[in-house]
Amino acid sequence: MDRPADNTRERILRTATRVFAEKGYNRASVREICQAAGANGAAVHYHFGDKISLYREVLRPAAELTEIPDELRADDTPLRVGLEAYFRPLRTLANDRQMPHMHLLFMREQMQPTGMLTTGWSDFFRPRHEQLCRFLCRHCHAEVIDDAINQLALSLIGMGMMLFLKPDIVQAFAPGLTRDDNALEATLQRLTDQATVLVEMEAERRQQH
Amino acid sequence: MDRPADNTRERILRTATRVFAEKGYNRASVREICQAAGANGAAVHYHFGDKISLYREVLRPAAELTEIPDELRADDTPLRVGLEAYFRPLRTLANDRQMPHMHLLFMREQMQPTGMLTTGWSDFFRPRHEQLCRFLCRHCHAEVIDDAINQLALSLIGMGMMLFLKPDIVQAFAPGLTRDDNALEATLQRLTDQATVLVEMEAERRQQH
Repeated sequence: MDRPADNTRERILRTATRVFAEKGYNRASVREICQAAGANGAAVHYHFGDKISLYREVLRPAAELTEIPDELRADDTPLRVGLEAYFRPLRTLANDRQMPHMHLLFMREQMQPTGMLTTGWSDFFRPRHEQLCRFLCRHCHAEVIDDAINQLALSLIGMGMMLFLKPDIVQAFAPGLTRDDNALEATLQRLTDQATVLVEMEAERRQQH
Repeated sequence: MDRPADNTRERILRTATRVFAEKGYNRASVREICQAAGANGAAVHYHFGDKISLYREVLRPAAELTEIPDELRADDTPLRVGLEAYFRPLRTLANDRQMPHMHLLFMREQMQPTGMLTTGWSDFFRPRHEQLCRFLCRHCHAEVIDDAINQLALSLIGMGMMLFLKPDIVQAFAPGLTRDDNALEATLQRLTDQATVLVEMEAERRQQH
């Protein structure tokens, strides 16, 4: 059973995510978050510290997106296993009801950066992009990251982005893809199949040259 | 040679795109756009009418994205030809130096909709998504748009999106993909190859069942 303190923490965090998303960091106030969450300022201070620390905690799920799965790093990971590991964190995000707020926060961070996500998407995603490129190089027998490897990586990133980071579009066009756990797993497997075939095509193209 | 009047029109339009992107529709003023463009209010009025009409004109390239290529509609378009036609408009966008501003405007329209792009991305892209799905059904011998077709369409859309609608990321990670006309054409062809192989895989999967 959850301790009440944990419930309060969760409630403040969920409310803060929504309020920061709707108003932006500067216009959101801790007082407003407290009121909406039915909590007092002492509870916010106890669990999170000051406003910027609360905001950092709100952004944590986004920061986790930049973590690189061990499978992608290891030298002996089979192609399909690595790609599935690459897409799996997106699956968790698609399950997260906070995701629309998170997406809004990402957009705000691009338009009015608070500095919490460094300088925006590009620095934010670079380590993951480069790790994916190195994994692709290994499986395509490419010695350096060239245009074709870069494009392949961007295609794979885009395929996952659209499905999981644009929940409003998926909801509107294809609700069956993220309806429940089974649907999400099927979607992840299809995505991995698609990614695998694209990498195999690139590996083959290189062998022919 | 361009007539001076056309230059003025273009200059106002480019400036307006930037100012609307930076400030948002409500906070941008026609006076500020005039000053930055080195034009007078009469010129804006002559070429565009009022503020909302100027804004509509600024958004036109985005609206063109929703136009459906004839090739996708026709019953007898070969797979690769249809897919190339689908991606080609994105190529024009990647060439457009205004694209970073346009991307910002898109984000603004999601966060503070003016109503000019209907209710956001989902309604905005729906006709194009559905037309792509019907084209995919034809080439996969699917009778209705099911989850697999929807996911395939979203994967194709995502592949193009990432490359052409996130110019800052492409610029940061893989500048070689959009450097000049030849690079763009090579990127478009690779993208079409990737899309083709994904559709062929889905068609094959259906035949086996």
